[in-house]
Amino acid sequence: MHALEELRELTGDENGAQRVAWTNVWERARDFLRAQMQGTGAEEEIDEAGNQWFTLRGDSERALLIGGHMDSVPNGGWLDGCLNVLAGVEVVRRIAEDGTPPVTVRLVSWADEEGARFGRSLFGSSAAAGSMQDQEELRALKDRDGVALPDAVQEHGVDLDGALAARSQLEHAAAYLELHIEQGPVLESMDLPLGVVLGTFGVERSRFTWRGQAAHAGSTPMDKRRDALAGAAKLALYIREIAAEVGGGAVCTSGGVVTKPGIVTSVVETAEQLLDQRHLDAEALARMLSMAREAADRFAAEENIEVQWERIWSIEPILFDETLIGFADEAVREVAGTSHRLPSGPLHDAAEVSRAGIPTVMLFVQSLRGLSHTKLEDTKREHLELSVQALDKLATKTLAWLADRTA
Amino acid sequence: MHALEELRELTGDENGAQRVAWTNVWERARDFLRAQMQGTGAEEEIDEAGNQWFTLRGDSERALLIGGHMDSVPNGGWLDGCLNVLAGVEVVRRIAEDGTPPVTVRLVSWADEEGARFGRSLFGSSAAAGSMQDQEELRALKDRDGVALPDAVQEHGVDLDGALAARSQLEHAAAYLELHIEQGPVLESMDLPLGVVLGTFGVERSRFTWRGQAAHAGSTPMDKRRDALAGAAKLALYIREIAAEVGGGAVCTSGGVVTKPGIVTSVVETAEQLLDQRHLDAEALARMLSMAREAADRFAAEENIEVQWERIWSIEPILFDETLIGFADEAVREVAGTSHRLPSGPLHDAAEVSRAGIPTVMLFVQSLRGLSHTKLEDTKREHLELSVQALDKLATKTLAWLADRTA
Repeated sequence: MHALEELRELTGDENGAQRVAWTNVWERARDFLRAQMQGTGAEEEIDEAGNQWFTLRGDSERALLIGGHMDSVPNGGWLDGCLNVLAGVEVVRRIAEDGTPPVTVRLVSWADEEGARFGRSLFGSSAAAGSMQDQEELRALKDRDGVALPDAVQEHGVDLDGALAARSQLEHAAAYLELHIEQGPVLESMDLPLGVVLGTFGVERSRFTWRGQAAHAGSTPMDKRRDALAGAAKLALYIREIAAEVGGGAVCTSGGVVTKPGIVTSVVETAEQLLDQRHLDAEALARMLSMAREAADRFAAEENIEVQWERIWSIEPILFDETLIGFADEAVREVAGTSHRLPSGPLHDAAEVSRAGIPTVMLFVQSLRGLSHTKLEDTKREHLELSVQALDKLATKTLAWLADRTA
Repeated sequence: MHALEELRELTGDENGAQRVAWTNVWERARDFLRAQMQGTGAEEEIDEAGNQWFTLRGDSERALLIGGHMDSVPNGGWLDGCLNVLAGVEVVRRIAEDGTPPVTVRLVSWADEEGARFGRSLFGSSAAAGSMQDQEELRALKDRDGVALPDAVQEHGVDLDGALAARSQLEHAAAYLELHIEQGPVLESMDLPLGVVLGTFGVERSRFTWRGQAAHAGSTPMDKRRDALAGAAKLALYIREIAAEVGGGAVCTSGGVVTKPGIVTSVVETAEQLLDQRHLDAEALARMLSMAREAADRFAAEENIEVQWERIWSIEPILFDETLIGFADEAVREVAGTSHRLPSGPLHDAAEVSRAGIPTVMLFVQSLRGLSHTKLEDTKREHLELSVQALDKLATKTLAWLADRTA
């Protein structure tokens, strides 16, 4: 994967990758991708949402899609997003060398997966999937310098009002494949180079507001207190029991507690606690949330305080295609001996494509120390090589399957 | 206690008492006190630290002091501080009516007990006690409008550099009595009007800084986490066990936790936790602190995180005089039937006087709902009357004791 090193030189600095979408460095990365695709015979097209497509026409209009994203966060890692695209280049080149494929093969670099500049991720893939339903909010977004999103994307040829026309790109899509670094510690801890992604977690984000009574730290005996922090502390510890009891990869995170008045001489009157819960199974996720809410009510009663619950945000789990998961498992076993199925905690463009009803699967390659979104992000060179081989085998199996179904 | 109501009219508004030290409203309160003392034969003097003294000469120079403070916090209560002084007026007036007392009797209104304007409490009493050793820091203090403390006190006749000369006021002091509202819920919960204060709590204030590892809430399995909040949560709950095990009125308060990065999508990397521990017994207090520190180390090991401890501030317990505690007990029983001995959580001017080696005791009168430093602060009228009677009886007993020792 010499191209990855070249791209790092071209678009990174001493602080890491700087391929933030809708910037000149990002354009440089798009030019680089164009150059990489030369000689494959694939035709380039940039759609109404800024997604960059390379189409290798096959015997049928039905299309196998391979995708990723060239954009990064500021001071990002050298692999997040672009590994997928550049591995796809090698796969498309190999397919082209084998002659006209039975179905069309398309490589896509989605625009602005990270949302680093405007805080809205999955821009290009959500437009193509038709799930971009927040045009009004997008119009109001500004970057740190006060530049509005519509003006920024316009500079790169995108008219926000027309972005949903990118939906036509998925008309003949029959399958979608994406390789990504894991961005977590699971494969490394199992000493496995590769894994098959079952889908993306459903997420429930909540705010619990605990209300007790401010009271003087010196003059208020312990049994006369109504301490809001006690409720938050109990819940911060209990969420581990929720995750353990529900199992299946359940995760619960209390990402922060804000205490008021927050001074050393007063019992805490108010504690605002954030909770993030994730699971691949919608029913399990619902159970996790109700366990947290029931426990919160119990803790409030125990502590003679009050608790109020608000949902901040939620998304359903998105499950990938069973058949493609099977192909991915075979491909990983063929190149690495052992496969492992795992959910994805972070969202990916693949989730948008899957939501649009297109059979989808992802491969994960091990991340060293689970780090991502930092220049410390890394993956062993031999694992990168294996990941390209696995994607290639997965593409071959998927092409054969599509050819059978097209015939 | 009609004078209390008059003072409230004169120095309060719809938000509560506004007798903040070193302001015109405070001067109005000092004028009011002067008027109240007229006709008693006591001579007024304002010392180098701004303390207002009224001296009723007796057969001996040795002096019984009765004190309190006229200043309040902004939007404060109608009783905090001034009850003591105005009850003292009645006691001095009664003694004066009885003829020349065997020892000198002095009423003192200490300057700036609350420290509301500059954040430094016990100004006048610490100067008189000689424990004001922070002149350099005092010089640097500014109020919200940028006025420096030395300039503000100068406007009220105090030269900061000379404030310690107020030490001469305690030269002949033989005993100090102070009545105060409890500012806590203990007496109300026992349905008792009055209590005898054993001394002021020793205090240990600490900051525990917990350090784990920030990690993505979606991609990091539960068993791979190093969650700083878990350490803080365990300690926030464990401090109740410390207080229960040590007993004797021990209190522990985790007054606030600050989490970083403090976002919903990340495991907490750093949690800064404040801890306030108080006890009337120095050894018990030391044990409470070491229990907290040992537990913190244990929790850090359990959670695979680190913890760092810093002392923010500490003060030794200050115990009041055994003989005077006995007199106070008798006085309270005589007027209220039942007495109760309790420590004081908050500091008071009495602590400074006691630290200076002068036999000291305080009486507490019940606070409704334990509230103070708010306009909601209140005490039943009949309890206020009982408190003045108890202070009067205590003064009588103390005068007799001093007369015996002088003779």
